[in-house]
Amino acid sequence: MSDYKAPLDEIKFLRNEVLDFPNHYKNLPGFEEATPELENAILEEAAKLAENVIAPLNKVGDQQGCTLKDGVVTTPEGFKEAYQQYVAGGWPSLSAPENWGGQGLPASMETAVSEIFGQANHAWNMYPGLVTGAKATILEHGSDEQQKNYLPKLVNGEWLATMCLTEAHCGSDLGMLKTKAEPQADGSYKISGTKIFISSGDHDLAENIIHIVLARLPDAPAGTKGISLFIVPKFTLDKEGNAGERNAVNCGSLEHKMGIHGNATCVMNFDGATGYLIGPENRGLNCMFTFMNFARIGVTLEGFCHIERAYQGAVAYAKDRLQMRALSGPKNPEGPADPILVHPDVRRMLLTIKSFAEAGRAFIHYETQVADRARYSKDEEERKKADELLSLLTPIGKAFTTEVAIESCSLGMQVFGGHGYIAEWGMEQNFRDARITAIYEGTTGIQALDLIGRKVLKTGGELLKAFTVEVLDFCDTCDTDLNEFTQVIKDRIKGWEEITGYIGGKAMENVEEVGASSVDYLMYSGYLCYAYFWLRMMKVANDKIKSGDNSDFNQSKMNTGRFYFQRIMPRCDLHISCIKS
Amino acid sequence: MSDYKAPLDEIKFLRNEVLDFPNHYKNLPGFEEATPELENAILEEAAKLAENVIAPLNKVGDQQGCTLKDGVVTTPEGFKEAYQQYVAGGWPSLSAPENWGGQGLPASMETAVSEIFGQANHAWNMYPGLVTGAKATILEHGSDEQQKNYLPKLVNGEWLATMCLTEAHCGSDLGMLKTKAEPQADGSYKISGTKIFISSGDHDLAENIIHIVLARLPDAPAGTKGISLFIVPKFTLDKEGNAGERNAVNCGSLEHKMGIHGNATCVMNFDGATGYLIGPENRGLNCMFTFMNFARIGVTLEGFCHIERAYQGAVAYAKDRLQMRALSGPKNPEGPADPILVHPDVRRMLLTIKSFAEAGRAFIHYETQVADRARYSKDEEERKKADELLSLLTPIGKAFTTEVAIESCSLGMQVFGGHGYIAEWGMEQNFRDARITAIYEGTTGIQALDLIGRKVLKTGGELLKAFTVEVLDFCDTCDTDLNEFTQVIKDRIKGWEEITGYIGGKAMENVEEVGASSVDYLMYSGYLCYAYFWLRMMKVANDKIKSGDNSDFNQSKMNTGRFYFQRIMPRCDLHISCIKS
Repeated sequence: MSDYKAPLDEIKFLRNEVLDFPNHYKNLPGFEEATPELENAILEEAAKLAENVIAPLNKVGDQQGCTLKDGVVTTPEGFKEAYQQYVAGGWPSLSAPENWGGQGLPASMETAVSEIFGQANHAWNMYPGLVTGAKATILEHGSDEQQKNYLPKLVNGEWLATMCLTEAHCGSDLGMLKTKAEPQADGSYKISGTKIFISSGDHDLAENIIHIVLARLPDAPAGTKGISLFIVPKFTLDKEGNAGERNAVNCGSLEHKMGIHGNATCVMNFDGATGYLIGPENRGLNCMFTFMNFARIGVTLEGFCHIERAYQGAVAYAKDRLQMRALSGPKNPEGPADPILVHPDVRRMLLTIKSFAEAGRAFIHYETQVADRARYSKDEEERKKADELLSLLTPIGKAFTTEVAIESCSLGMQVFGGHGYIAEWGMEQNFRDARITAIYEGTTGIQALDLIGRKVLKTGGELLKAFTVEVLDFCDTCDTDLNEFTQVIKDRIKGWEEITGYIGGKAMENVEEVGASSVDYLMYSGYLCYAYFWLRMMKVANDKIKSGDNSDFNQSKMNTGRFYFQRIMPRCDLHISCIKS
Repeated sequence: MSDYKAPLDEIKFLRNEVLDFPNHYKNLPGFEEATPELENAILEEAAKLAENVIAPLNKVGDQQGCTLKDGVVTTPEGFKEAYQQYVAGGWPSLSAPENWGGQGLPASMETAVSEIFGQANHAWNMYPGLVTGAKATILEHGSDEQQKNYLPKLVNGEWLATMCLTEAHCGSDLGMLKTKAEPQADGSYKISGTKIFISSGDHDLAENIIHIVLARLPDAPAGTKGISLFIVPKFTLDKEGNAGERNAVNCGSLEHKMGIHGNATCVMNFDGATGYLIGPENRGLNCMFTFMNFARIGVTLEGFCHIERAYQGAVAYAKDRLQMRALSGPKNPEGPADPILVHPDVRRMLLTIKSFAEAGRAFIHYETQVADRARYSKDEEERKKADELLSLLTPIGKAFTTEVAIESCSLGMQVFGGHGYIAEWGMEQNFRDARITAIYEGTTGIQALDLIGRKVLKTGGELLKAFTVEVLDFCDTCDTDLNEFTQVIKDRIKGWEEITGYIGGKAMENVEEVGASSVDYLMYSGYLCYAYFWLRMMKVANDKIKSGDNSDFNQSKMNTGRFYFQRIMPRCDLHISCIKS
């Protein structure tokens, strides 16, 4: 696991050949210069930093964790220096607007970079990772002055950020939030309350931390309609806009948790801290959704990153570890035993992981392409459609990818046998770190309710319909030699429509039915989405093979895709059975 | 999780009413006095020790782990004292033969006790847990002198034991074993080599540790047919048979692992240590199977214990944690929100765990009842049949129970949301500790090959047939109001026979097919076994309800069983699809 290699060939194949990013960027106003050459150069630089600097800190972070002493949080050895290199390399500003000092590249290109940093070190990447959502929130909802105050230093990486939602008594149910905000004569607010589970809540990487905090104004309505959003910097700004006086926001304690030890998960105490309202009063939750949607896509990426690491670790071990002979006779007769890769059950585990890793990559890059269109397209109708599609994909990607990430990381450990349970090999850390992704930023159960309730039933199935039309249209572009696979997709789309109708009907009789079926519905949706992305990858590989490029790479795509359709897709039936029972 | 309660009502229901242990003991020669009254008294004492002494050390053990300093391994605070109480209470001798100082109770009664200690603290219970297999190995294969030398102090708990199989280059494939045994003039052997992953390999709980070690004699045949078994005590015995001189066997290092931190997992160096051959030369692996079969059933129990802990933790939290309103309207209108138990997806998770916990308990107690018959029955034919059934059940129980344990512990964490990821609540430790059970004593893949290869195909399906006859006969004793469930079982038995034939046929064409289908075959078998135990529990509950005992306990059995048949059993179809693909 220490030998992380950025999967550049996979990323290039997917972005250049499957999802046609070159053409996507050509049609995206302002991003015409985002050529594959530029992207490749960027990804190669990212790979160097990730492989040489950030990945080696992954185990260090797990073993040392963060410490809190005399109110000061210290990150593991090397984390700060790695962050300094990251800033020096200009990575924080990649996709930020040029008027705030950014490089003005498309956000989807940042996703490709984040894949690499996220695979290298989940816990470390969470520190810069949260800034994307904070910047977007300030850009979208902040006043001119707030943008001027905070964006330049968030963009250049001098400062970092957090999102402060959860309190001890409320996680999924933010309506119960208690943190108070009292207006002051100067237009600022005094923020008082305690937030828990704050990722990157305090640390020594940056000179200031900008907390984006949900709190309640005096006499605000009860529930979610009485929540406002505030900017609370760790250091309030001096006249020059630099970090000035220490604000009354402190890390009360660090959580002891299963994984991501290198990230400081803090209990944050706001003791009358100075804060600034961002967006309209009592509309804080809506503003925070800008941040949360970024965070959910970010967690989808994190989940996928762990699948890739599970695969890299397990396949290397399976080629190396000699144990027993193949059932059909020795495959390595010179050696004392065969590599365990020859054992069919080991191959089953590896192919399961690989099939999720590659479809997971396709999902996240596709999603970020849709997000580009939603944000940057010149055509309003296209922006709207893309935004709707993104809102459908977000809960599926978040919950499904993280659930199959957990499965993949567990299988990755299993391939190692007893060695998988030992810290030395990194597979158990990979599992522990991955496990949070199905919990934070909305559990699988919460995502499933969002999908079936808000995104499907509430829209009368319109969003779903639009996506299935796209998928079916794509099936029609495939050659008949892929019929075996397009047929599976067509059947599953019919099944998707049926169970949607079934749940919709049941919901009228008994709304609890929606809740009982929601996770099965989400998982069905996820398997189908991944099948769509497998078909897209297989179409490219199949065309190349037919035109004579019979490389291992292309053959592997066909084999893994076939495995996915044959061995993984039958899981859809199980989810239908559960929904109907 | 700190509030562990021994589930005495569940154990009593199962043993007295479902599996009819009272009658079982009446028919078992020498155990006629093992009455339910005696058993209850024993279980209540075990519950006190477990709840008050052993369970509170579970978190301590996880947080402190074991330490190695100057060659001495120290267990976490309180472990030694708890073991002293355990010895003082006479627990080590429960099922040992009276001629060796034991209490002569049936081994299956020890299983009930082990359930309680194992649920209280997996890592701690591994220290005494390994002695059962060591005693059996010495009883079955040891010379009179070896029995006299080692059994009394293993029986009274003064000494503990280990099993030393694995080496760095061989785990599943013991044929590659390198540890050497050189004969000495006095009839002893000098043992040299390094063993890894030795559970309870060294520690401070007992004054001596008896290692049962696989090693190779000079000029022994290559592979598994050249392995012999040795007794290597940490301290060789003096003339009085007490621990005498320190033997040349030492803990070289402690493994850093995902869980079971309270147990010392050691690299053990044998540097010409004095050892004594047990059993015939070159037949060591056969002798070790006595130990391994105990260990596999022991791990089945451990897996199940974690499901029970997952359920106890999750259901308590789900009743306590207030978050959001039920979809169909407030269920706790006085409170700020409803308990999360009202949310259908939370109920789905809890019922999944519960349905595995209760069937898992039934499986393990049934298995141990079969083991009683195999060992103690007066009828040779019955002993043989029971032994065959046990050999069929062992891999299913070991692999299936531990796989659903991993699922259950993961769901148990998920019910807690963010709090599940935090050490404080114990759910993440429960997961980490459970994860080893699908790996050690033969991974799921190894168990699956044992099942389909040795236990099913090699016997021409005879063992399977005998078990299905028992299950079908039981179905016939059920009232027609259970038809809905008996029919599922009958259909699944037909399916079992079909896939067995299918794999057998394929095996003739291509033996690799066996490997590729083996885990799916095992999982199918496991779901069916659990369904059988659910039917047995439901029959009792249903009869009681019909005779007027409409208690919550009986209703809950019917509801959970129905959930199992409706929501869990459809998974069988998935495994069939995967086998046939």
